Amino acid sequence: MASINTTPLSKTGLPPGSLAYIGPEREGGTIIASIAYAPESVAFFDGLPPEDAPGITWIDVQGLQEVEEIAGIGEKFDIHELVLEDAMNTLQRPKFESYDDYHVLCLKMIYLSEGKRVVEHITIVWDNKKAITFQETKGDIFDNIRKALSGGKGKLRTRGVDYLVYRLLDTVVDHYLEVLADYEKGQLYIEEEILENRGRKIMERLARLRKEMAWFRKQVFPLREAVMSIAKTDHNIIDSKNVKYYRDLVDHINSAIENIDLHKESLAGMQDHYMSKVSFKTNEIVKVLTIISTIFIPLTFIVGVYGMNFRYMPELEMHNGYAIVWGLMIVITLLLLWFFKRKKWL
Amino acid sequence: MASINTTPLSKTGLPPGSLAYIGPEREGGTIIASIAYAPESVAFFDGLPPEDAPGITWIDVQGLQEVEEIAGIGEKFDIHELVLEDAMNTLQRPKFESYDDYHVLCLKMIYLSEGKRVVEHITIVWDNKKAITFQETKGDIFDNIRKALSGGKGKLRTRGVDYLVYRLLDTVVDHYLEVLADYEKGQLYIEEEILENRGRKIMERLARLRKEMAWFRKQVFPLREAVMSIAKTDHNIIDSKNVKYYRDLVDHINSAIENIDLHKESLAGMQDHYMSKVSFKTNEIVKVLTIISTIFIPLTFIVGVYGMNFRYMPELEMHNGYAIVWGLMIVITLLLLWFFKRKKWL
Amino acid sequence: MASINTTPLSKTGLPPGSLAYIGPEREGGTIIASIAYAPESVAFFDGLPPEDAPGITWIDVQGLQEVEEIAGIGEKFDIHELVLEDAMNTLQRPKFESYDDYHVLCLKMIYLSEGKRVVEHITIVWDNKKAITFQETKGDIFDNIRKALSGGKGKLRTRGVDYLVYRLLDTVVDHYLEVLADYEKGQLYIEEEILENRGRKIMERLARLRKEMAWFRKQVFPLREAVMSIAKTDHNIIDSKNVKYYRDLVDHINSAIENIDLHKESLAGMQDHYMSKVSFKTNEIVKVLTIISTIFIPLTFIVGVYGMNFRYMPELEMHNGYAIVWGLMIVITLLLLWFFKRKKWL
Amino acid sequence: MASINTTPLSKTGLPPGSLAYIGPEREGGTIIASIAYAPESVAFFDGLPPEDAPGITWIDVQGLQEVEEIAGIGEKFDIHELVLEDAMNTLQRPKFESYDDYHVLCLKMIYLSEGKRVVEHITIVWDNKKAITFQETKGDIFDNIRKALSGGKGKLRTRGVDYLVYRLLDTVVDHYLEVLADYEKGQLYIEEEILENRGRKIMERLARLRKEMAWFRKQVFPLREAVMSIAKTDHNIIDSKNVKYYRDLVDHINSAIENIDLHKESLAGMQDHYMSKVSFKTNEIVKVLTIISTIFIPLTFIVGVYGMNFRYMPELEMHNGYAIVWGLMIVITLLLLWFFKRKKWL
Amino acid sequence: MASINTTPLSKTGLPPGSLAYIGPEREGGTIIASIAYAPESVAFFDGLPPEDAPGITWIDVQGLQEVEEIAGIGEKFDIHELVLEDAMNTLQRPKFESYDDYHVLCLKMIYLSEGKRVVEHITIVWDNKKAITFQETKGDIFDNIRKALSGGKGKLRTRGVDYLVYRLLDTVVDHYLEVLADYEKGQLYIEEEILENRGRKIMERLARLRKEMAWFRKQVFPLREAVMSIAKTDHNIIDSKNVKYYRDLVDHINSAIENIDLHKESLAGMQDHYMSKVSFKTNEIVKVLTIISTIFIPLTFIVGVYGMNFRYMPELEMHNGYAIVWGLMIVITLLLLWFFKRKKWL
Repeated sequence: MASINTTPLSKTGLPPGSLAYIGPEREGGTIIASIAYAPESVAFFDGLPPEDAPGITWIDVQGLQEVEEIAGIGEKFDIHELVLEDAMNTLQRPKFESYDDYHVLCLKMIYLSEGKRVVEHITIVWDNKKAITFQETKGDIFDNIRKALSGGKGKLRTRGVDYLVYRLLDTVVDHYLEVLADYEKGQLYIEEEILENRGRKIMERLARLRKEMAWFRKQVFPLREAVMSIAKTDHNIIDSKNVKYYRDLVDHINSAIENIDLHKESLAGMQDHYMSKVSFKTNEIVKVLTIISTIFIPLTFIVGVYGMNFRYMPELEMHNGYAIVWGLMIVITLLLLWFFKRKKWL
Repeated sequence: MASINTTPLSKTGLPPGSLAYIGPEREGGTIIASIAYAPESVAFFDGLPPEDAPGITWIDVQGLQEVEEIAGIGEKFDIHELVLEDAMNTLQRPKFESYDDYHVLCLKMIYLSEGKRVVEHITIVWDNKKAITFQETKGDIFDNIRKALSGGKGKLRTRGVDYLVYRLLDTVVDHYLEVLADYEKGQLYIEEEILENRGRKIMERLARLRKEMAWFRKQVFPLREAVMSIAKTDHNIIDSKNVKYYRDLVDHINSAIENIDLHKESLAGMQDHYMSKVSFKTNEIVKVLTIISTIFIPLTFIVGVYGMNFRYMPELEMHNGYAIVWGLMIVITLLLLWFFKRKKWL
Repeated sequence: MASINTTPLSKTGLPPGSLAYIGPEREGGTIIASIAYAPESVAFFDGLPPEDAPGITWIDVQGLQEVEEIAGIGEKFDIHELVLEDAMNTLQRPKFESYDDYHVLCLKMIYLSEGKRVVEHITIVWDNKKAITFQETKGDIFDNIRKALSGGKGKLRTRGVDYLVYRLLDTVVDHYLEVLADYEKGQLYIEEEILENRGRKIMERLARLRKEMAWFRKQVFPLREAVMSIAKTDHNIIDSKNVKYYRDLVDHINSAIENIDLHKESLAGMQDHYMSKVSFKTNEIVKVLTIISTIFIPLTFIVGVYGMNFRYMPELEMHNGYAIVWGLMIVITLLLLWFFKRKKWL
Repeated sequence: MASINTTPLSKTGLPPGSLAYIGPEREGGTIIASIAYAPESVAFFDGLPPEDAPGITWIDVQGLQEVEEIAGIGEKFDIHELVLEDAMNTLQRPKFESYDDYHVLCLKMIYLSEGKRVVEHITIVWDNKKAITFQETKGDIFDNIRKALSGGKGKLRTRGVDYLVYRLLDTVVDHYLEVLADYEKGQLYIEEEILENRGRKIMERLARLRKEMAWFRKQVFPLREAVMSIAKTDHNIIDSKNVKYYRDLVDHINSAIENIDLHKESLAGMQDHYMSKVSFKTNEIVKVLTIISTIFIPLTFIVGVYGMNFRYMPELEMHNGYAIVWGLMIVITLLLLWFFKRKKWL
Repeated sequence: MASINTTPLSKTGLPPGSLAYIGPEREGGTIIASIAYAPESVAFFDGLPPEDAPGITWIDVQGLQEVEEIAGIGEKFDIHELVLEDAMNTLQRPKFESYDDYHVLCLKMIYLSEGKRVVEHITIVWDNKKAITFQETKGDIFDNIRKALSGGKGKLRTRGVDYLVYRLLDTVVDHYLEVLADYEKGQLYIEEEILENRGRKIMERLARLRKEMAWFRKQVFPLREAVMSIAKTDHNIIDSKNVKYYRDLVDHINSAIENIDLHKESLAGMQDHYMSKVSFKTNEIVKVLTIISTIFIPLTFIVGVYGMNFRYMPELEMHNGYAIVWGLMIVITLLLLWFFKRKKWL
């Protein structure tokens, strides 16, 4: 089972305003791809779109390591340095901020890629003419949106930037739910292992999963607040006819959070359950030890008695002494078995 | 004891607006049954009611798998696609939303059917002329309401759609309380089993129940908020003379939530109690082992001593050596018994 | 120690508005007793008071099983059916509701009767002319109020219905505190038992007490909110000069809740403490076993060696072989004792 | 280590308004001492001050057992009976109430007296001419304030009653922090004992401390709210130039609450730590037992074999049989030691 | 691993307003260094700046032990005595307060110095002309700010005091995150130790870390509220164009709090994990003991039987008695091994 790397990187003590990429090292540079679309047309560009591109523009920046490139985009579109800093800091927590001319949303994409869980930092900057997405790596989960744009079906081409942003967010949150369903499967598998007394390092895996869930919650919880403040109609950030989509999004995020909380509770329950099984087994093992010891230790004592070499031991001389001792030992054994039965140890 | 299946289904990454049934596979198609009623008349229809049906109409859609059928109803009554999506998604959490022309409430029916707990997704869409219910499966818990409608007694036929919706919700919540009382019985049974030291797989069953309670809470808790926002008088969603009924409903939901919380606390207490019993038993078993070992191991040593074959062992030659050894062993045993008595192990 | 029965009854799925008594079966029917009082006069009646009774009337209905009787009272005084339903449902949680012409408060009396804890459902319905109390059983805790009324001393006869209601509530809450003090005594007793290592079924009793405390909290917590909404002056429910009494009442309820929470915390602490004692004892028992075994098992081996029957065993022939073996065994024992001393096991 | 007695007294079911002292029995009666001060003068009186005393008066009532005396003071200064009740009820929780002509604050003094922790109920009643303090016992922590008054330095004599009340409260809260520091010392001492494996009844002491902390929190937490409602400037309870002192006081109370919470967390951590040590020791003890048993039990079996008295046992006749058996036993022992080494038990 | 000393000092019961340094004893006196800067100029001074220094002044007071010096500064700049008291009390919790002419923020610096964690109390007092910082010790983390001031690059010299304060706070919070990353490393190291079954005193170290995290949270949590109340635009405390910086700061503090909470959760998880490992090992050890005992104790009994010296024991006379006994013992051993196999103990 693949697992999310939850180790944070240390943020060096740079002065605010000095741009730097903070995140794991990645191969390849920064790629820019743009789409300009209007209800009746769509155009794809490598790099920035031409200045005179009509309609709405989506500029997609993939790879955050080339500081100058990012700084150039920031300058061109007049984006505040604090925004660029947050975009390039993969440790940045999800948040929404509204500047004078544009809005900014930082969040995490968490999705399955070839069975592995992948985490990617993404920042969306938008005004009512364009959306700029800064993604941590090449390759993403938005191909269905690009397809919808090029196909031209559905509402995507006919609505504003706020609807595009909604679609991006909806895709991200859908992948959260998918990853959670994958976790669920993993949990059910461990649950089965516990029930069937197989599986190794159960405790390690449960501890790992709990840690990942705590980390997941930390990524999703602030997103709710962020999207809710977008959806508040009095800000006029989104078109009133799109409000219901954003409310729906909040509802999905709530669903993700509730699932995470259920998972956490359920993992805690599994740990308790597993530990109780260990206690149980110890109990059972000790019971076996006690039964065997309690039966044989007195018997061994008895046979020891008649192994003594005293000159004068009357029993030894008796003709049926040996038989009597056996009888005695059988009686003792039966009494002890009865005792264990009564104690419900057998 | 039957148990609720709490495994969620994975929601596939469909674009918003593309209808699809999300839930366990079910046999049979979608059935529509309608009731049109007025204070003095009532009429039952298979399928949709005639356009000119007088008074209030309740359209009951049972089975959500036939996408086209559902989409058709949505089109006919001008219901937003997001609503239909939620109605067909059995993973949807409870919520209330008010659209321009109608109101929507998603919730879960949880009831006992032939001793088994059944969960069913239901969505109620209503305006002041009609209520449409989308139910996950055929068969439901609303027969008493149909009977009341056909009988014509009581207030049902003389009041508005909001009172019908109240009656539907009240029936659902009453069944929550019934299911909780059933859980209670199950819990008391396990409690007895623990007290009487019988019953198998107690820990597994308790863990299962805790999981189910957490799931139950997740279904009921958002419903409170939903019904409370219906009951707020300033929305004019319900007739002011029905407000007290909705307030009563909120009170019942509160009661269900408090019961669930009590159950959860009580289950946690039972787990603690059970684990402590296991610890106790281990303690008792080890005590038996220790007492037996502590008495017989030294005695066995003594008889071992006089089983040695040294040529020169003066005790062996003594005439009453054997008797003295027995005396010594009895003294040791009595001392140990006194020691155990003092330690309160006996 | 008597204990509160916390088993809820299953509420049958009756349609709202159809009256039924929900609660444990009780002997005897419904008794009505009334008191009409004014500053200068007081009169006691069996049954309802005469229509022309002057001043303030307190109608006390004891026993809720006779549905028709209750329904008759409801009709006579024009009480809403939902109120009567709540009055007759002993599972009803505490709540306050204000109707157009009257106010309703449901709550639980919890008091000590002959050393046993008794729970009784009570509903108080009042306007500014009369108060009606619906009690679950005959016999109650209000005799001091009746005495104060008949005696005529104090403010009771000179003030309004709101002051009478305050006095009823104050009496109920005082009994909560008394019951809590009784629990406290029980707890201290168990605490002593734990410290002195006596007492049986400690864990069972602690688990029971925790459950009862959780149940108690569930009864008292919603009452606070209920009384607080009475005390809010802007509703004009109570005379402004009585506000301070209601505020005092809220303060007492807070005190009860805080005591319950302290009890719960303290019970959890006692459970931990007790379990740690069990672990401790196991530890001590195992220590004894280990010391005895570790000393005698090697010694038994040694004497076993010289019990072997090999033809050629030079030690056996030595004259002081026996003494040397004893010396060896004493040295081993001393070494082991020193080892245990160092490990602080002795 | 002295410990606070947290046993509550049962409040008898007295009608409201009938004064009674509720608290532990105390020797000595009620003493009244007064101070009348103005910027330029100060006068100390036994008993109540003369009617014509100029400036501000502080009337200090010590000892609450003489009901009539207290009732007399109440009558003289026109204090509501509910206030007197609270003043004489040592179980009363901290609260602030503002009456028409005066303000009332109930709280607990918790301080160290000769190394012991002492709890004392105190009620402060004040208007803008005088402050009356009702203390549970003789002797208090306000001597520094009396000294400051008689010395005449500082702001005390030049400011209003609200500043005097602030100084009283500040003294009380400072003593809270002192008591908490004393607890801290006690905790560190136990922590050391745990680390060094010494100290007895650790678990009992930790449980006791947790209980006391929970009790302490219950005393301090409501005080914050009480002082905060004094500090709210819109009430005009205190002079605006004294607001910052009260805000500072709230800050100190916050500090006390945070310390208590840290203590509680830390005590819980110590319990866990201690229990884990016990588990550890059991583990170690069992390891010793297992090692000794596992080595010697097979060896004892082997020597037992050659202690058998069969007529035909070829090994016994071999000349070097004895040496071979020793060799075998040494090999077995070495193998077992290697096994334990690999298991990291040695 | 260095660890923060979390022992609080006892605050002596000084009257409010009497200045005293409360904290650990430090060498060296109080040093004052000042910087006066304007967009085009910067000047560094030992001691206070000249009265006529142009532009903005930052007065840095390092070392809080010389009461008179501090009092002198307070008098010169007309700072309220409560502020000075808080500045000199290293136990003071973080808080923000706004006085008529200036603002005050108390907080803790927590940073790494030569691999050790250092805690230092700092108070910032500022108006729109100057900022005064009171630091607990000489040496700090603000050298980058001094460099930026002297270099003259960046915005520092061109903006107001509020931006300087922001930069100071930003530096402090960045160091929080650095210290947390250091803790993270320590945790990962312990996690590895647990997984690889090495490392000593794990439980002690985990308990210590939990305590430190609780302490850390106590320092950072109130800071959030403090900075948030600075950032509220309606106070006009900061220039509206700097609001976004302060909002960014709040976001960083949130990040620190979330990290601390994750750490705490993760430490709790590690403790559980570790304890479960101990239980596991005990289980395994007991299993070995039981297997060995269960096999050899019965065998030892058998050989004991034939070591008895009864005159008449027919088996002893049989020629192949010895071989039969060996056969019997091998069969018993095999049966027991099969039993253990089935129980999955082998």
